[in-house]
Amino acid sequence: MKHLIDIKDLSRDEIVGIMDEADRFREALHGREMKKLPTLRGRTIFTLFYENSTRTRSSFETAGKWMSADVINLSASSSSVKKGESLKDTALTVEAVGADAIIMRHPASGAPKLLTQWLPGTSIINAGDGQHQHPTQALLDAVTMRQRIGDVAGRKVLIVGDVLHSRVARSNVDLLSILGAEVVLVAPPTLLPTGVEHWPARVSSDFDAELPGADVVMMLRVQAERMDGGFFPSHREYATLYGLSAARADALQDGALIMHPGPMLRGMEINFGVADRDNTAVLQQVTNGVYTRMAVLFTLLAGEESK
Amino acid sequence: MKHLIDIKDLSRDEIVGIMDEADRFREALHGREMKKLPTLRGRTIFTLFYENSTRTRSSFETAGKWMSADVINLSASSSSVKKGESLKDTALTVEAVGADAIIMRHPASGAPKLLTQWLPGTSIINAGDGQHQHPTQALLDAVTMRQRIGDVAGRKVLIVGDVLHSRVARSNVDLLSILGAEVVLVAPPTLLPTGVEHWPARVSSDFDAELPGADVVMMLRVQAERMDGGFFPSHREYATLYGLSAARADALQDGALIMHPGPMLRGMEINFGVADRDNTAVLQQVTNGVYTRMAVLFTLLAGEESK
Amino acid sequence: MKHLIDIKDLSRDEIVGIMDEADRFREALHGREMKKLPTLRGRTIFTLFYENSTRTRSSFETAGKWMSADVINLSASSSSVKKGESLKDTALTVEAVGADAIIMRHPASGAPKLLTQWLPGTSIINAGDGQHQHPTQALLDAVTMRQRIGDVAGRKVLIVGDVLHSRVARSNVDLLSILGAEVVLVAPPTLLPTGVEHWPARVSSDFDAELPGADVVMMLRVQAERMDGGFFPSHREYATLYGLSAARADALQDGALIMHPGPMLRGMEINFGVADRDNTAVLQQVTNGVYTRMAVLFTLLAGEESK
Repeated sequence: MKHLIDIKDLSRDEIVGIMDEADRFREALHGREMKKLPTLRGRTIFTLFYENSTRTRSSFETAGKWMSADVINLSASSSSVKKGESLKDTALTVEAVGADAIIMRHPASGAPKLLTQWLPGTSIINAGDGQHQHPTQALLDAVTMRQRIGDVAGRKVLIVGDVLHSRVARSNVDLLSILGAEVVLVAPPTLLPTGVEHWPARVSSDFDAELPGADVVMMLRVQAERMDGGFFPSHREYATLYGLSAARADALQDGALIMHPGPMLRGMEINFGVADRDNTAVLQQVTNGVYTRMAVLFTLLAGEESK
Repeated sequence: MKHLIDIKDLSRDEIVGIMDEADRFREALHGREMKKLPTLRGRTIFTLFYENSTRTRSSFETAGKWMSADVINLSASSSSVKKGESLKDTALTVEAVGADAIIMRHPASGAPKLLTQWLPGTSIINAGDGQHQHPTQALLDAVTMRQRIGDVAGRKVLIVGDVLHSRVARSNVDLLSILGAEVVLVAPPTLLPTGVEHWPARVSSDFDAELPGADVVMMLRVQAERMDGGFFPSHREYATLYGLSAARADALQDGALIMHPGPMLRGMEINFGVADRDNTAVLQQVTNGVYTRMAVLFTLLAGEESK
Repeated sequence: MKHLIDIKDLSRDEIVGIMDEADRFREALHGREMKKLPTLRGRTIFTLFYENSTRTRSSFETAGKWMSADVINLSASSSSVKKGESLKDTALTVEAVGADAIIMRHPASGAPKLLTQWLPGTSIINAGDGQHQHPTQALLDAVTMRQRIGDVAGRKVLIVGDVLHSRVARSNVDLLSILGAEVVLVAPPTLLPTGVEHWPARVSSDFDAELPGADVVMMLRVQAERMDGGFFPSHREYATLYGLSAARADALQDGALIMHPGPMLRGMEINFGVADRDNTAVLQQVTNGVYTRMAVLFTLLAGEESK
């Protein structure tokens, strides 16, 4: 494996391999005072972010540094983009500086894929491209589900909310279907993409009807700026119909897991108190994010096939 | 000691302990070509700055790196704040990524204190919160005073200028009173906070009358945007009444120390030439800032009580 | 050698010394999986950039990190500049924090030179000052030319385009003349600086007439915002008269080298396809940039004279 662009590029074995590696990093480091491995010493990792991000960028930076890599951050606001340079030339330049891996976030779907064509020798990691994919998010979600409820095969996973604009939803549907879960997309028709009928998931617009039997409820971030203004749903309708209220959280079966990729809008897509319940895994997702990204960087830069 | 939020939380022994530690770091490193200790190797320190800063952020970053910690910078402009995430969720996320310490600057007084309640397991360091506290500034000032004029007990320290808006003034008054100095706040009544009569300091509006016998004159940064527009004092009045002119500097007794937390507005709160005199400690304050912050990080992350 | 401000400050031996050092770093590291030398461990390098930059800043950061230095980035947007601090006080502060070297980019010609007067004890490296100098660019260009076509003495080098606004052109003219190359500036009279007749270079406004016999064609970045609006040349005239078209590239003799400091505006100063030809050295320039900056940092911070 040289790049990580799209969950659909991965085999089941490759996915489970990364998940196992993430578990090994967690076992090796979690709770330890000293979080430092020599694994990637002398390797140079660039983050190239064309969209703002706290958690994803710092998660990757932490993952790289804990493996002793050199991590260099580039953001679009300080880049040559403003001087009219093409994406290709920027990418070629970053490679020529000495990048072993480029972690890219970009508002255009497909941008990281283009990089793999232009820079076949450098590992490209998609940290979110438009409404397309966010593969490390799906991997860390899978790591978290397995840690909390075991194998997801045959389990019922609800993915709830603004599916239309969500790269997190796309990556999770792909990954969960490979792992054999039963995925239900819960969303109003206006927030579903065209072609959703071909996804390996069932669609529902009735959140309450889907709660019984659900093993995982994964709430999506609301892209609030895309609502209101006469469209359905408005903020209020969204919270009422697709928010995870206390009543809905109470209706879940024992042991059901509540997830959210963050940042959360409490009171909107998730009730204030529900976000802090014991069966909520939000912060565990963040923690597993670092171990999962260590596993990805390790697999791409130091794994069998990269040699 | 787990956190550093407010000078008033510290005992005299804890203050002197940090000052002694700062001196030890200075003795170990100052003037050495090789500034690197293994002290905090494998520890992860996040800076979380909601206000711009050159000196404080880079001082902490240098302190962390010289002790081999991993330092990761987050600024509000690139954070999830813009996506509507609450301060609490941002802080919980940074902890979940793997922070051993969070160094926070925030425009709201009390924000770092809130973090200690939400994140009891992570060391929180207040790098300036609103008009409230800037404890590492007061500590580095105390380190500098002791280095230059010895014990401050019984010494007369003038703190001059915009006391109202100054977190530096508040932290210094608290610390100097604990160390037994005689503190005089020199400011126009319009730039004094309500309740100043309860502070452990005397108040004066006559700078010239206070110069005789002063051992230290600590000038405050002028928050120039808060002046003029019909208020007293205007820029010109301020410079005339509360600026450290050459004549005032000449009127000081031999050995009196001139201090400023920076950034200085030469010609405003301090005369151009006075800022470069031999009895001015401005750059020594900056240098001691790194050693003091090393001492704080060391005390919080590797000290006796943190284990 | 303590600072690097202006190519004209360097002797021929010093230039060749840095170039040889750059070659040694390339031989030691290029193509290696592990790019890490202990050379500058314990040294602290600040980048202080008052203009945006992807390639120069990240190139220096990479150079420092590959030699195990601590690298701390400061940008004007987050600096005390906004609070009214003078350039001198900012520089003195960075030195007092603990900088062994300050790498500075500034829109004002001469700013880095001022720093050497204010901070004689700290190595100052000019990473581009106004329209004045960009010495590491000229050095990396010389390293690249020697690698590709051998000694440049007696060779014909065209520097083409907006010479007026180009610090790259100035530094290259200075360095190439010291190395004995024949330099021809190809530009419209409106994009030549006053006094160019005193430069050690011939001037021409006829690109086509200069192509025969050229060993190197160095294209300059177009400062597009300075064109059009009734001035000569317009964008279209520029591309026609001074762009490196496919026809012009075809007219070059075998083995002639095409260079560009980047970022390139393909279709403007250089034809889309020409930028990717085998005799184009653009990415090699970027790669040599890191090795050349390692050589500069090593020479200034660990070289014979710095001790």
